[in-house]
Amino acid sequence: MHNKEHLLIIGAGLCGSLLAFRLAQHGYKITLVEKRPDLRKAEISAGRSINLAFSDRAYKAFKMAGLQEKVAKLFIPMHGRMLHDLEGKTFLSEYSGREDEYINSISRTELNALLLDEVEKFDNVNLIFNHTCQHLDLDESTADFFDEKNQKKINLTADYIFGTDGGGSAVRQSMQSQKDFLFSHSQEFLTHGYKELHFPPTEEGEYAIAKNALHIWPRGENMLIGLPNPDQSFTVTLFLAYEGGQYNFNNLTTPEIVEEYFKKEFADAYAILPNLKAEFFENPTSPLGTVKCAPWYYNKTMLMGDAAHAIVPFYGQGMNASFEDVVEFDYWLTRHDFDLKKTFIDFSKTRKPDADAIADLALDNFYEMKSHTAQALFLKKRQIELALEKEFPKAYASKYSLVTFKDNIPYKEAMEKGRAQDKAILSLLKHDKLKDNQSLEEQLKLIHKTTKQLLEGDFLLEN
Amino acid sequence: MHNKEHLLIIGAGLCGSLLAFRLAQHGYKITLVEKRPDLRKAEISAGRSINLAFSDRAYKAFKMAGLQEKVAKLFIPMHGRMLHDLEGKTFLSEYSGREDEYINSISRTELNALLLDEVEKFDNVNLIFNHTCQHLDLDESTADFFDEKNQKKINLTADYIFGTDGGGSAVRQSMQSQKDFLFSHSQEFLTHGYKELHFPPTEEGEYAIAKNALHIWPRGENMLIGLPNPDQSFTVTLFLAYEGGQYNFNNLTTPEIVEEYFKKEFADAYAILPNLKAEFFENPTSPLGTVKCAPWYYNKTMLMGDAAHAIVPFYGQGMNASFEDVVEFDYWLTRHDFDLKKTFIDFSKTRKPDADAIADLALDNFYEMKSHTAQALFLKKRQIELALEKEFPKAYASKYSLVTFKDNIPYKEAMEKGRAQDKAILSLLKHDKLKDNQSLEEQLKLIHKTTKQLLEGDFLLEN
Repeated sequence: MHNKEHLLIIGAGLCGSLLAFRLAQHGYKITLVEKRPDLRKAEISAGRSINLAFSDRAYKAFKMAGLQEKVAKLFIPMHGRMLHDLEGKTFLSEYSGREDEYINSISRTELNALLLDEVEKFDNVNLIFNHTCQHLDLDESTADFFDEKNQKKINLTADYIFGTDGGGSAVRQSMQSQKDFLFSHSQEFLTHGYKELHFPPTEEGEYAIAKNALHIWPRGENMLIGLPNPDQSFTVTLFLAYEGGQYNFNNLTTPEIVEEYFKKEFADAYAILPNLKAEFFENPTSPLGTVKCAPWYYNKTMLMGDAAHAIVPFYGQGMNASFEDVVEFDYWLTRHDFDLKKTFIDFSKTRKPDADAIADLALDNFYEMKSHTAQALFLKKRQIELALEKEFPKAYASKYSLVTFKDNIPYKEAMEKGRAQDKAILSLLKHDKLKDNQSLEEQLKLIHKTTKQLLEGDFLLEN
Repeated sequence: MHNKEHLLIIGAGLCGSLLAFRLAQHGYKITLVEKRPDLRKAEISAGRSINLAFSDRAYKAFKMAGLQEKVAKLFIPMHGRMLHDLEGKTFLSEYSGREDEYINSISRTELNALLLDEVEKFDNVNLIFNHTCQHLDLDESTADFFDEKNQKKINLTADYIFGTDGGGSAVRQSMQSQKDFLFSHSQEFLTHGYKELHFPPTEEGEYAIAKNALHIWPRGENMLIGLPNPDQSFTVTLFLAYEGGQYNFNNLTTPEIVEEYFKKEFADAYAILPNLKAEFFENPTSPLGTVKCAPWYYNKTMLMGDAAHAIVPFYGQGMNASFEDVVEFDYWLTRHDFDLKKTFIDFSKTRKPDADAIADLALDNFYEMKSHTAQALFLKKRQIELALEKEFPKAYASKYSLVTFKDNIPYKEAMEKGRAQDKAILSLLKHDKLKDNQSLEEQLKLIHKTTKQLLEGDFLLEN
């Protein structure tokens, strides 16, 4: 029965492509429409050579689809944060005390190309590029597109529609303007924007800095990060406030002042940024925002991925969360024996708290990455956590590990447990309760007990 | 200098009228434009006979304007919440242990009429009704209006523009669609809507229930409330979920089921609702939402009141917050020697955290009013708090009192202190630390100490 239903998926980015792949596996007839040209044939514009951190929640989705081996070929493992101080001294802060827990740098373009190649293998998928969604009639389940190549309008109708068209979703905008639909929505911008730069390979064709790490130059209010690419280059991103402080996007207006800023704040990075001034003024400055909304569906149209929950990039979880959406959706779809309407309701209800949680965690991590990572108390906490994870790999997992590697724990639970744990350790350290003469086991017990008290709100028990 | 500037104020509701009055006092030339007809001449439509709870923050604004004696004539004092249980038994939960702390029922229409009368006395104010704002050019500080009576467009230009046009603000919508302006905004709907009903006076021309209280019928998920009017009637509001539970707005579709619901859940109210069935189906069901945005100004246009921060009505603070905006704005305006641009920046920055706080408090109170008010632990807490306020009027103020009566304490501070205090008392009660054999002074000390610990995050100090 279900395999005769026709699904229109709007947006063939990462989430839409994987969703189309999975639903094609189930036998649905699918039309997958993308606004942009086929990225396998097009030139990627400057400042858009984005790489992403692929971790366990995304991998879970690829295992479900049977694509795990293909995607793994695109990975460059990153075992920790390589912190660069003002003098250029570096320090590796590992992501986990467990050796098998690390994240992977991956090219957005290569990953999307892999998914499109796989989607095209299905006879029951019709893949259309260069068609911009302009408007949806949500009551009739039809959508108007503008065919950019032939400069004409077309209309597509389907049994169900999926909006996987990203943070600026046209599908979501149609929900916003739907009369008599109580659609809650928010869009929050950070005070900071970002700009992409580039470390080319060395003259010897090597990586200019350590390959297997996510490099961070934390500078309090602002920061620079770098992720490795397969071609021995690094994609580098500057996160900088639009205003305030000595340097900001509004006052970095001449090549001289850009150079001054980088020499002063990121001297070791400056030395390997030969095209800094050109890149700085050619590449766009882009805003960073969080989008939330509810409910994610109206009638027979459903939002998924960034269209439903765009987040800031500081936990490296935006893509992971979008791929995990497909896993969760698939869970409800099979449980409801392919009844899409029931699946919409349960997926929207159960997934929303987790999407909200990772949005909030990503904002928290912005503050952690740009400043805390370099602070003594934070470093001490990480040191204890890594020791615990090494010594008791099954009994302890840090917040980062719960969020990033424990793909069977929902984001909301990971957030609540992780935050309580962080608070417990920082408080214990502050009150000098974690001492060097204690065994690791004693420390673990104390942290577990305090975390439990915090989670239960029983902070007065021992007063 | 400043008194030559021309200000356009869009929206002559409560906030816009008081703002116009205050800025007229300062000598500015003002055009005040309202979409609706003059409410002093028009019939008020059914289900819109809204009354409001006027408390100290609003009163502070009227004192600033010199209108305190005039507004006080419109007050009907309400000393507490009169709780009605299923059997019709009532219990008065006082708002404060201090006799001079109470709130006042006031008619929105009468209050607005008072302000319009006062505004019209100024030669430097031009008051225009029946003109709908359609679009603003924020770069040019001009606005297009549709003249509803003459069915034609007009355009108004000013040195500065204020958007005081309420929760659905057209001025805010112009900010949302402004290109290259990073305008964060959110609109969140509750799962509940509301509908207005009416207790008429008794046959003897008396109030049908106790006059000087805010009546509440808390029923877990839903509730009914009633506020007194000067004509011996009560305006009654049903807050009910749109869906879920045995009764909701989606299934109360026949007179019979409405009657069944009221007889079962609100028997004593049902007895004095002679026009229930007609009112239920004639009056609209309206949604409840929270609007937040930032920044509140762009170029020379500023949002204020509900246009900047619409909140749900459960703390009785929406109007109070809007009037307090005018006080805060006035503070910065005089401090900046009537430099409006500087005032925009500082007002927007310093007032926003307080507006966010009262929005969150109002949502909290929704849960408190419809369920907690009838719970044993909550009642015990209120009992202790009232005793403390009576015995130590200067040393103790509950969260409700901090928010509602302490108009020199900003909302954010009131929220933080009030929440910590609530948490402290509830935890102390839960762990049986507040005992009947303790003196009130001992209890006060314990509550103060625990509150302080919670505020400082020092919960481990005594472990």
